[in-house]
Amino acid sequence: MNYTDLPTPAFLVDRSRVQQNCDRMRAKAQRSNVAFRPHVKTHKTVEIAKMQHGGAIGPVTVSTIAEAEFLASAGFSDITYAVPIAPQHLGRAAELGARLDRLNVLIDSETALDAMEARHLADGATFDVFLKIDCGYHRAGVDPKRTESFALARRMAASCAVRFRGLLTHAGHSYNATNIDDVIRIAAEEVSAVSGFWRKLELGGITGLIRSVGSTPTASVVERFDGCDEVRPGNYVFYDAFQQAMGSCRSDEVAVSVLATVIGSYPERKQAIVDAGALALSKDAGAIQLDARCGYGTVCSLDLEPLPMRLVALSQEHGKVECTGAVPPVGTRLRIMPNHSCLTAAMFDRYHVIDGDEVTDEWRPARGW
Amino acid sequence: MNYTDLPTPAFLVDRSRVQQNCDRMRAKAQRSNVAFRPHVKTHKTVEIAKMQHGGAIGPVTVSTIAEAEFLASAGFSDITYAVPIAPQHLGRAAELGARLDRLNVLIDSETALDAMEARHLADGATFDVFLKIDCGYHRAGVDPKRTESFALARRMAASCAVRFRGLLTHAGHSYNATNIDDVIRIAAEEVSAVSGFWRKLELGGITGLIRSVGSTPTASVVERFDGCDEVRPGNYVFYDAFQQAMGSCRSDEVAVSVLATVIGSYPERKQAIVDAGALALSKDAGAIQLDARCGYGTVCSLDLEPLPMRLVALSQEHGKVECTGAVPPVGTRLRIMPNHSCLTAAMFDRYHVIDGDEVTDEWRPARGW
Repeated sequence: MNYTDLPTPAFLVDRSRVQQNCDRMRAKAQRSNVAFRPHVKTHKTVEIAKMQHGGAIGPVTVSTIAEAEFLASAGFSDITYAVPIAPQHLGRAAELGARLDRLNVLIDSETALDAMEARHLADGATFDVFLKIDCGYHRAGVDPKRTESFALARRMAASCAVRFRGLLTHAGHSYNATNIDDVIRIAAEEVSAVSGFWRKLELGGITGLIRSVGSTPTASVVERFDGCDEVRPGNYVFYDAFQQAMGSCRSDEVAVSVLATVIGSYPERKQAIVDAGALALSKDAGAIQLDARCGYGTVCSLDLEPLPMRLVALSQEHGKVECTGAVPPVGTRLRIMPNHSCLTAAMFDRYHVIDGDEVTDEWRPARGW
Repeated sequence: MNYTDLPTPAFLVDRSRVQQNCDRMRAKAQRSNVAFRPHVKTHKTVEIAKMQHGGAIGPVTVSTIAEAEFLASAGFSDITYAVPIAPQHLGRAAELGARLDRLNVLIDSETALDAMEARHLADGATFDVFLKIDCGYHRAGVDPKRTESFALARRMAASCAVRFRGLLTHAGHSYNATNIDDVIRIAAEEVSAVSGFWRKLELGGITGLIRSVGSTPTASVVERFDGCDEVRPGNYVFYDAFQQAMGSCRSDEVAVSVLATVIGSYPERKQAIVDAGALALSKDAGAIQLDARCGYGTVCSLDLEPLPMRLVALSQEHGKVECTGAVPPVGTRLRIMPNHSCLTAAMFDRYHVIDGDEVTDEWRPARGW
């Protein structure tokens, strides 16, 4: 089937672009001689998780336990759950960990460690654990400069409930960058935050820890990975308008788009309505520079040329487009490059995989938690 | 099971509040002597669609053909698909329509009518059609003041492909209101736009058309429905922080919340992280007055008292909370009242129904298109 015959809205995945994105990042990790544990949260599929490892099973990073369970069922056996684990989920993690070669979990608090120790005392469970380090993003993670962080690491190293595997950080603030120079500076901060704390621990006798870093902007712009042992980029498989705007990728490396149909055409007010609303695109406005240019997504022709249109508003099933050029008539097909592919992909229960213009596969992502 | 034992994030639906919201709106329609065709797009479940009709099957409005097919399978047989239909979907609509007592579809263009007539010439299909009127929202719909709109209506009345059922409008701009007076004014505009055009058509000999109106803000604030034949509110089954802020409902009428767990606690920076991110809450910032007060959702205690916290950022699986009071420790359960319940509900494959503190049911919404 030609993809233009698909019912809309549809989420299109360009297989050869995904393949190229996967191969390039994997090659960079290999020539940098670091472990490669790509994140799967952007796509949540078995198929692309294998593409990230050159067609094989390999170590992965997940954002939900549901993703871990989904990939475990497909044979993935070395998984890092890279969100601080809620104490209530320790039982589920212990069960899953027992079926795998390795399930690494993440903590950044004494309270979470207390919960692991309570569990260990109750039923003997032990956990492979990374300590989350805040490298400047100020979302999750301990501040590596605080003495309390060192004390927590020391307690983890000594705890019978824990196999202390390493330090993990994520430079999410790279998403606030507006140019490559900013991203390169943040990439250096990411590595230095985790390496500085790692050296302090080494001096304190806590050795053998893995330094795990990764965000798609930082991983995309560096020539090679230095000062770390493991990298975990994820969005790079698809990229998106946001990544392109900050310089992580070229527009012809963006591998996904939402196929939409014009369902309303109003030349008298220079507007059109497409059938891709908030439930197809997600309501991520992206960075400020994106919002000014294209709003909730970049409206493109079928050959992915950006059109003089701005997606100014999304309601549940309507996308409102303002046109500076001709207003397309009802029935016109368009492709919308998402601002943030992770959130847009998650709106779809199935992806339509295209090779050229042909739909050659349908992939189903994991859902929920 | 007590709802606090659910794995998080979880979407909680308070059955008695939904029941009250359903009963109140249905009673208002009954005493106004107008047809009641509630929208199901907010909840997308068979269970609540029946509650909207006092426990019975009744006429409904949907936002996707998938919702129509889902409800048709459960016995609903009189359905209005209230988004302008894409020409490519006419075949699916004709098939579904043949199984139902009535499937009304919506158009607002000559092009869509052309497509219906082409289909009729090809296979004899006919369609029950409403003409969408723009009552000031300027999303979809024809401008009732333009002569082209009258010409389209006349063509619909004369077309063999169409049974011209009525005029439909939606005062979506009521969502931009900041107080009840604004909403009441918009409710009047909604009725007058459709009634004015309806009278013009009557004078032109096009009679018997249904005047269908409805948005939750306008339907909630009016004492009774006047100047229309049918009402189609939807969000009122759940309501949300947005509706409460504009005066459509009281906070104790909001029937849904997202149960979340604190997974990071950082008293030194007065912040916490919860496990409800963009994939649990959606990234709807709501109105400006909401954004300033609570950000991406109202963080509440388990007994739904708003806490001195602001949900300042959402990433995929993290919600970042700024606290003006005490920072809750890791493991704390919170309930987040969504800004926009339609979008938040759609992030969940299952709803947990609570009666008091007990989880008494699990409902599955329709998904996709």
